[in-house]
Amino acid sequence: MHKPVIIVCGILDTKGKEINYLRERINEVGGEARVMEISLGKEVGWADIPLSTVLNETGKKKEEIVTSSRDAASSMICEAGQAYVKKLYETGEIDGIISYGGSMGATISTSIMRSLPIGVPKMMLTTMASGDVRPYVGSKDITMMYPIAEAGLNVVTRQILSQAAAGIVGMAMAPQVNQAEIKPLLGCMMFGVTTPCVLKASAFFEEQGDYDVIINHSTGAGGRSMEEMIEDGFIKGLLDITTHELVDERFGGVLSAGADRLTAAAKKGIPQVLAPGGLEIINFGPRETIPKEHMDRVGLPGKGLYIHNATVTCIGTSPDEIREIASEIAQKLNTAKAPTTFFIPMRGWSAVDIKEPNKELGWSGPGPGVCWIEDKNKPGWSKRSMVFYEMLKRELDISKDNIEILVVDKHLNEPEFALLMANVLNDMLKGQYTKGKYADIEYVVESI
Amino acid sequence: MHKPVIIVCGILDTKGKEINYLRERINEVGGEARVMEISLGKEVGWADIPLSTVLNETGKKKEEIVTSSRDAASSMICEAGQAYVKKLYETGEIDGIISYGGSMGATISTSIMRSLPIGVPKMMLTTMASGDVRPYVGSKDITMMYPIAEAGLNVVTRQILSQAAAGIVGMAMAPQVNQAEIKPLLGCMMFGVTTPCVLKASAFFEEQGDYDVIINHSTGAGGRSMEEMIEDGFIKGLLDITTHELVDERFGGVLSAGADRLTAAAKKGIPQVLAPGGLEIINFGPRETIPKEHMDRVGLPGKGLYIHNATVTCIGTSPDEIREIASEIAQKLNTAKAPTTFFIPMRGWSAVDIKEPNKELGWSGPGPGVCWIEDKNKPGWSKRSMVFYEMLKRELDISKDNIEILVVDKHLNEPEFALLMANVLNDMLKGQYTKGKYADIEYVVESI
Repeated sequence: MHKPVIIVCGILDTKGKEINYLRERINEVGGEARVMEISLGKEVGWADIPLSTVLNETGKKKEEIVTSSRDAASSMICEAGQAYVKKLYETGEIDGIISYGGSMGATISTSIMRSLPIGVPKMMLTTMASGDVRPYVGSKDITMMYPIAEAGLNVVTRQILSQAAAGIVGMAMAPQVNQAEIKPLLGCMMFGVTTPCVLKASAFFEEQGDYDVIINHSTGAGGRSMEEMIEDGFIKGLLDITTHELVDERFGGVLSAGADRLTAAAKKGIPQVLAPGGLEIINFGPRETIPKEHMDRVGLPGKGLYIHNATVTCIGTSPDEIREIASEIAQKLNTAKAPTTFFIPMRGWSAVDIKEPNKELGWSGPGPGVCWIEDKNKPGWSKRSMVFYEMLKRELDISKDNIEILVVDKHLNEPEFALLMANVLNDMLKGQYTKGKYADIEYVVESI
Repeated sequence: MHKPVIIVCGILDTKGKEINYLRERINEVGGEARVMEISLGKEVGWADIPLSTVLNETGKKKEEIVTSSRDAASSMICEAGQAYVKKLYETGEIDGIISYGGSMGATISTSIMRSLPIGVPKMMLTTMASGDVRPYVGSKDITMMYPIAEAGLNVVTRQILSQAAAGIVGMAMAPQVNQAEIKPLLGCMMFGVTTPCVLKASAFFEEQGDYDVIINHSTGAGGRSMEEMIEDGFIKGLLDITTHELVDERFGGVLSAGADRLTAAAKKGIPQVLAPGGLEIINFGPRETIPKEHMDRVGLPGKGLYIHNATVTCIGTSPDEIREIASEIAQKLNTAKAPTTFFIPMRGWSAVDIKEPNKELGWSGPGPGVCWIEDKNKPGWSKRSMVFYEMLKRELDISKDNIEILVVDKHLNEPEFALLMANVLNDMLKGQYTKGKYADIEYVVESI
């Protein structure tokens, strides 16, 4: 039977005996441990993958580590370590990774772990594990274990390290998931205010029975995790109904998913249908935390203030901001090879972006949704939809057969809009997609 | 071979299919899964340990859950669940525990996990695991795993749940730690300002070679974890050099270890030597976060202000506060059955509580340590030591053979003080302790 190869990552000049104990225990329970050195002080000489071998991956020398600042040294090791394990993964030489360390060890080791795809078992033992672990875990399947003590081998730590070793080997030897049970997976992005659309579109695929749908919240971590699942090959098609995180990234909101949001699907070549859900609002924390430059513009066209609850406040986006976002979206989608359709619902983009109260679409009123701005020349249509459409039409490469803009005379949360998105994605997945196929439906304004 | 029994804990009325999948995977890899229901809505009927069985442990009925508020219901289930798994543990019917849930599921499940001793494998899968997990982990060896998705069975979650199942079974089947490698464990409590004493006393035992020493920081979590390790039977003797957390608990500091600090050793009957390290300071966060009632008293006798760094500020304790603490300590130690000696160093309790600069004792000056107060009648002796001694002598039951006060004409960080503590604990551990044995040493003022 194949022995699972477990990389045991550690700062050996200070945690050498603990890492060596992990190695012995991993080998004892049927794993094949390989100690990978990320020492900041000196190379210890007994690692299976010495510091210099790791650093060689990015052309660095161990002498540079010793003479650099601690910060610079740790960045160098992170980068080299990521490159090294990536190579191991590509050649099938890693079945799991584990580490034990303090805050520095945890920072370096988990940055290396995060560079591996979802599904490669990853375990970090650190006393940092009883606190805020978001910087370590991010949006990856990293298992954090609290080892009680920061260092030392004694009856407590030996027991915990033994269990961790047996745990990571067990995880690496887990039976393959039964392929018969698995359906291809679709990704879907959701917000509270786009829920009706998301549930309707995902129900389409559940009823049809050919796909599972994984729904992530557009909270920053949710978008990052979606992009990573696409990169890691888990997602076969994308219902990107809530592209909101682009706005928070560009205009200083708190739910940013980084600059790479909306890029993985194009890069990976999976079909995608998109909509501007949530692009009408920038998300902040409690009202008193909103930066002055944003508060000063509240009341200008589109800049409504919406207090969601004590910890979440939103401000609407202006037409100018929407032009910028549309341009960014066009640049990102122009590289797509697979079918890619951007849907523009002309009657509003979410529960708070709607002309009048409508409980089924998520807005109880009174009056229009707090972020609604109407187009002067076209009553009932959103000003944002108009400027978004103009910019997208100008910058999106719609000369290509696989790139399309679909303008719909509906609100985003109307069932017809959700079902149209689902049908187009289904066509794409089944190889039945052709641009303009739904141009004749009465509420389709344009399909170009 | 014994199949490890894994309790699979879950809110079955909302996470039933995920919990059932975990059960199947655990059984597949050689575990014996038993599903324990902690549903808040209704009893589902298929659990191995149904909700009513769990609740029966504390005399509650499932009808009370349904009609109670969510908060009250969750408290009832926590309490009953803790009692239930405690019984399983005592009868040897639990080898590990795992759960998958949202924030409510994680709250209930980890409260149940925390009631089990260190060393029983505990794993929690929740999307809360990429955030602040201190409320879930506390000071126990709980493994937190980030499962990417909040719910649903799909190619991603199936893979992660399969690995988690194999991981917990692996942990539960980990070989016993080699007894020949293990030395009995001593616990020791440390602060930055008591480090010289701690290192000297623990070095005594390391050089002697009969014991391992586990050193925890007096950060609240450190003290809790020490009390728990004592309760769980890991600690054979206690060097409680830094009893600081009592002060933060009583006077509103941030490093409180709860009301039970300083109780486990007496309850468990292990020998202990104690000192007032850190009782001279109350710990706060950044200076601007210190409550007004504390800032108002800065400058009064003993109430010095010490800015440790940007995030840690300390204020000294007053003689009146020290009397209260001495009284609390006396009540707690009076129940001890094993030998228990409280050491009072008359020349100061830490690096910031010292008459004049002394680098080896941790204070570079200039001038006296920021928290120093001198006794008017006895130059060189600490006012706090005097009032502490008076109160302890009055309230500690020194009529008993196993309870002793040892007054020493030294500073806490002086090597002679540390070695005296170590020697007395060593006597206790070797059965060579008698009260008053060191009364004749020149710097021992009193031994009663």
